[in-house]
Amino acid sequence: MEYKKINEIPVKVHGRTIKDACPLPIFWSRSGIEVNVRANELWVDIEVGCDYQEPWFVTEINGAFMSRQMILKGRHKICLYRNLNPAELRNVKFYKDSQIVAGEEALYVTIHGLETDGTFEPVEDKKLKIEFVGDSITSGEGTYGSFKETDWRTMFHSSSRQYASFIERALDVESRVISHGGWGVYTGWDNDIRSNIPSIYEYVCGIAAGEENARLGAKEQNDFKAWQPDAIIVNLGTNDNSGFDQPAFDVPGVGPCKLRRNEDRSFLDEDIEKIKSAVTGFLKMLRKNNPKAHIVWAYGMLGSEMNLPICDGINRYVKETNDNNVAFLNLPDTTDETVGSFGHPGMVSQKVAADVLTVYLSKRFNMKINGYNGNI
Amino acid sequence: MEYKKINEIPVKVHGRTIKDACPLPIFWSRSGIEVNVRANELWVDIEVGCDYQEPWFVTEINGAFMSRQMILKGRHKICLYRNLNPAELRNVKFYKDSQIVAGEEALYVTIHGLETDGTFEPVEDKKLKIEFVGDSITSGEGTYGSFKETDWRTMFHSSSRQYASFIERALDVESRVISHGGWGVYTGWDNDIRSNIPSIYEYVCGIAAGEENARLGAKEQNDFKAWQPDAIIVNLGTNDNSGFDQPAFDVPGVGPCKLRRNEDRSFLDEDIEKIKSAVTGFLKMLRKNNPKAHIVWAYGMLGSEMNLPICDGINRYVKETNDNNVAFLNLPDTTDETVGSFGHPGMVSQKVAADVLTVYLSKRFNMKINGYNGNI
Amino acid sequence: MEYKKINEIPVKVHGRTIKDACPLPIFWSRSGIEVNVRANELWVDIEVGCDYQEPWFVTEINGAFMSRQMILKGRHKICLYRNLNPAELRNVKFYKDSQIVAGEEALYVTIHGLETDGTFEPVEDKKLKIEFVGDSITSGEGTYGSFKETDWRTMFHSSSRQYASFIERALDVESRVISHGGWGVYTGWDNDIRSNIPSIYEYVCGIAAGEENARLGAKEQNDFKAWQPDAIIVNLGTNDNSGFDQPAFDVPGVGPCKLRRNEDRSFLDEDIEKIKSAVTGFLKMLRKNNPKAHIVWAYGMLGSEMNLPICDGINRYVKETNDNNVAFLNLPDTTDETVGSFGHPGMVSQKVAADVLTVYLSKRFNMKINGYNGNI
Amino acid sequence: MEYKKINEIPVKVHGRTIKDACPLPIFWSRSGIEVNVRANELWVDIEVGCDYQEPWFVTEINGAFMSRQMILKGRHKICLYRNLNPAELRNVKFYKDSQIVAGEEALYVTIHGLETDGTFEPVEDKKLKIEFVGDSITSGEGTYGSFKETDWRTMFHSSSRQYASFIERALDVESRVISHGGWGVYTGWDNDIRSNIPSIYEYVCGIAAGEENARLGAKEQNDFKAWQPDAIIVNLGTNDNSGFDQPAFDVPGVGPCKLRRNEDRSFLDEDIEKIKSAVTGFLKMLRKNNPKAHIVWAYGMLGSEMNLPICDGINRYVKETNDNNVAFLNLPDTTDETVGSFGHPGMVSQKVAADVLTVYLSKRFNMKINGYNGNI
Repeated sequence: MEYKKINEIPVKVHGRTIKDACPLPIFWSRSGIEVNVRANELWVDIEVGCDYQEPWFVTEINGAFMSRQMILKGRHKICLYRNLNPAELRNVKFYKDSQIVAGEEALYVTIHGLETDGTFEPVEDKKLKIEFVGDSITSGEGTYGSFKETDWRTMFHSSSRQYASFIERALDVESRVISHGGWGVYTGWDNDIRSNIPSIYEYVCGIAAGEENARLGAKEQNDFKAWQPDAIIVNLGTNDNSGFDQPAFDVPGVGPCKLRRNEDRSFLDEDIEKIKSAVTGFLKMLRKNNPKAHIVWAYGMLGSEMNLPICDGINRYVKETNDNNVAFLNLPDTTDETVGSFGHPGMVSQKVAADVLTVYLSKRFNMKINGYNGNI
Repeated sequence: MEYKKINEIPVKVHGRTIKDACPLPIFWSRSGIEVNVRANELWVDIEVGCDYQEPWFVTEINGAFMSRQMILKGRHKICLYRNLNPAELRNVKFYKDSQIVAGEEALYVTIHGLETDGTFEPVEDKKLKIEFVGDSITSGEGTYGSFKETDWRTMFHSSSRQYASFIERALDVESRVISHGGWGVYTGWDNDIRSNIPSIYEYVCGIAAGEENARLGAKEQNDFKAWQPDAIIVNLGTNDNSGFDQPAFDVPGVGPCKLRRNEDRSFLDEDIEKIKSAVTGFLKMLRKNNPKAHIVWAYGMLGSEMNLPICDGINRYVKETNDNNVAFLNLPDTTDETVGSFGHPGMVSQKVAADVLTVYLSKRFNMKINGYNGNI
Repeated sequence: MEYKKINEIPVKVHGRTIKDACPLPIFWSRSGIEVNVRANELWVDIEVGCDYQEPWFVTEINGAFMSRQMILKGRHKICLYRNLNPAELRNVKFYKDSQIVAGEEALYVTIHGLETDGTFEPVEDKKLKIEFVGDSITSGEGTYGSFKETDWRTMFHSSSRQYASFIERALDVESRVISHGGWGVYTGWDNDIRSNIPSIYEYVCGIAAGEENARLGAKEQNDFKAWQPDAIIVNLGTNDNSGFDQPAFDVPGVGPCKLRRNEDRSFLDEDIEKIKSAVTGFLKMLRKNNPKAHIVWAYGMLGSEMNLPICDGINRYVKETNDNNVAFLNLPDTTDETVGSFGHPGMVSQKVAADVLTVYLSKRFNMKINGYNGNI
Repeated sequence: MEYKKINEIPVKVHGRTIKDACPLPIFWSRSGIEVNVRANELWVDIEVGCDYQEPWFVTEINGAFMSRQMILKGRHKICLYRNLNPAELRNVKFYKDSQIVAGEEALYVTIHGLETDGTFEPVEDKKLKIEFVGDSITSGEGTYGSFKETDWRTMFHSSSRQYASFIERALDVESRVISHGGWGVYTGWDNDIRSNIPSIYEYVCGIAAGEENARLGAKEQNDFKAWQPDAIIVNLGTNDNSGFDQPAFDVPGVGPCKLRRNEDRSFLDEDIEKIKSAVTGFLKMLRKNNPKAHIVWAYGMLGSEMNLPICDGINRYVKETNDNNVAFLNLPDTTDETVGSFGHPGMVSQKVAADVLTVYLSKRFNMKINGYNGNI
């Protein structure tokens, strides 16, 4: 058995992080490492800081789900597999299933290295890269757990049963996720206008709290040149919509914030305008950093009331910039049969949404759709 | 056996036509008659004029599909059923499965009466009325026939396997269809700008050709007060989109018409503007005639390239009128597994689209969704 | 337009009938004619005798369902299609959807000829022939109509939505159906022991009543050499099972017949023995007439209580004959979600059963399974 | 936080083991513990002995899958959840996902206790108890992992994606699993006749190897009175079938063993007789120990060639014993779309089989079938 530092291995790093860092910080949902290895066994050396919401990790072997577990605070040597035929080349992916938790200052994750009795081989790049930007839906909240659950906890969140995961398999692509539950394009679900994704989009993981994450590089500007997506899927608007039905939030230094409805329940012009502008502005930010990506605003898994305002924001963007490489797509609404825990889309709803996006992307990029076999 | 004229029977008339007319003209797809009857047998007395494209009719009993047949030119007494238990109250629906055919001057259909050995009872109104306005998709083109078929013929068109049909069953509602293959909101698929639905929307069946249809009342103003829908589903835009990829059409008295793309394949501003205006204008027309209907522009079963322009047209309408009782909804795209004949959505694609609309409408109008049993 | 007698056309005849007869008698469900034709239009000249239960016919074009209609008493020229591109070779199938009705003396069907403006080309044989022998399930009772229907009428029976139909498409094979509702391998559902399929199996259509059917050849010995199936699917036992729960039937010349249960509801040995012997005997009859066919007793769509007695009958057959080219296969039971009219398997249940048989046959005969496209 | 020994807690023990033992031995797949708890967090104190094939465990909360992980050799305190609302009563199940491994002498698992900051409440018994007896299919081999995997390892085996698991949820019942890959009712897949389930059925876990398991009670007679199933599902025969196609196995003290085929590939009478007798004999053993259980031999997920011999064995049992409380049921065969890893039924195939059994059991025991929601 030989231990190697993570930066000594031909590892494919998933998710935004600091290039060549050792230990390697893992911030976002679906972030982690992927290796090709010929070995009898493989272990990962991982370090977790945590106060309240433990990170959950998933192991996939040859593209199939193997394990999902909570990683407790501390440094651990975790076995990814043991006693498989060492002559076979095996693809192993180990990634954070749960999302980053805003405000959890103690929470951080780093991967120090891998230990194996075998040898590593390079992981080939996929033909297409997709970035998924979103909220709780994109963080897979509700994809694990009984429909009875009401606690907002990492154990019920996932990227392994979320739509990006299904699209990855169907189209054989690489994905990144930038998302946080409750956040919007303009405001959070509770009218806290600080909870907006654009404000943190340009940093490695601007949402990560605490000194350790800062030290690890979370607050640095993201190096967009290092990873340019072919497509960006933006699934935002659900929490902005929620703001119209929630009480005001007293934002420090700003005062009470509240999105308002007219008496007929339509949106107050002045308030919906804020969201439209935020949509337009976010598209500009996305384009600045991702010059060639096809941007799809894909929305609707928890109601579609924001369709028209979002499209207005997109149309303004197109008009102002003459950039037509953007699109809008509705994702099917969640139903009683497809809902998961705490009223969020379950695995089935995520699969239905993934199918719609898969068809769209396969046509746009002229790609074959893989069938699923009997396991996922 | 007793023969009764159609206006002597407590018949529920489906589709736009002339109130109390006898014989009763049948114009649109999904138009026809519905009766409740206690009888051993039931016959319909129908007259068809036709030169080339025969009308096809479907019989449903107690909500289940029974028969689909071509009706040839001439007057026929057609048996809807025989030798069923006369003690049972039975709901029988006999409707035109195929769409009206623009330009087919000889084509008309009238129902003269019914013959039975039993008694009729009134048909109760459904709780919700929905109007479906569209093109070939709403005319169910492609829902019958092998994927090999390429002839544009009524036999491959239907309303029995089209999304309105599935929604009717799922939500127990009443529907009307106003649709024609190849037509758009601004222009037809071939850039013939006369093929636009708004130009004929306000007439009973403005699309019907020939003297006989005129005599039967097709060109009369529609009596909107007599049937006010709770919801209108507009599925237009697919043919407008097509215009950008088709050669110019020389419209008599107008000259060559053609929607154009820029070099990067985006739409020429001047041309897409025509469609946006048409969307806005059509919404105004719909609202004028249907003051309380919830209007949903539901689009996307054959590509979604028009999402943003359509939404721009809708947003302008909202801005100009302050009417927020409109919405936009994407329907899932047709795939290799769901396509029917001549490249159009097959029955499965129509069912998938119906499911999305059913969920939307059930939430909007707080209605229960019926399961399907083993037959359709 | 040219009229040709049916025996002057290179027609493929489906179902047991009299070779080269003109007019051609049509007896069993799924029986009829198939032609390849290049023509603008095609008409069939059909004659029906009928007192109470009209025969229903289905037209398929290029393998896709087009029309289903009742054919009334009399001689009719029925249009199968009109105005399709005459340059295309088109496969047209016109077959009896409804089963033969035992006891309906007036009922007969013959096809006299076809009329067309085009030319016929031969229909190639399929690679595999399958005979389906059964009862109401194989007669597709319940596959049309609302679950509310309780009348036993041809309009609710079909071969177009029955499992043989789905298997034909999935495996591209040719099928024949020998079946009648209520009949068993030993006794009918009501303990009328005359209603057993073996008693009529060796005749062209031994179940057909009346002088006209006799004159047409129904009572003749079937010419087994002319059509040897590669597989025979026997779906019998459901009505034999029913006999244990029905009152005695007074069979003329025999006296009261009744299958009995013990107090613990198990079958009385003496009575279940009759069914086991009938299974063994029927297998011998099938083998005598079909020396090379793989025989599968496929049962269970309305309960599986007869599994063990049927297998006992089969095992005895194997022991007595040393013929191992027989098998038993359970078909999935019908559920609340898959039931059709009058408590019988609906279209969905038939599709589920077809899938099980399709997988079995595809492995046995090493055949590819075709996917369905968006229409059926 | 308070630590309690496992025998001090109102724990529901799943799977055959030693009553009130502390530590509690965990032998079979799907064996483990279930508690109802009101607590902020819950930990389990587990001990594992292991040389080569680590045991895998699954945690379910409120009936939903949460975690799946390998447990390494040694004694571990594993967190089942943290920081969930302590006011809520929560059902937590922690069970061995992987099967017992015959021949792995070092392998044993015991649970010592639980630690929590909350309180336990009793777990109510389910209305129905079902015992599943089988081979690799019942051990869920192939239900995890890519179809590429060929290693026989616990990581690819499961009870969480196996049919018993789906039936438990659908019918809200309690289940036990007695199964081992490669074993049969008469012989193992490789003609090793020692690998037969009847030989170990009457012991707590007769298949467990090594001194530690013996010390823990594995070789003791099972206390059948303590847990009487309402139904027993026997899924055996697949490996007996395999013996006909495998070379002879030299069984120590017995000599070469081999099941043989005739030239026409049918089974040699003398050899198939051994399996039939084994079926009959095993049914007698099952009945002796489970006087009231409804016994269903449910077979066919990897071919159905043994249907008739199995039924012969069952019919002999019925004849000899006059016990009719037994049945045979075919489970649908695995297809290219439903296969999992190393050619075994994948999760989808297991779900399809579970559906057939669920319908059967729901009718037999008059139970409602629960729908699945969007998660599993």
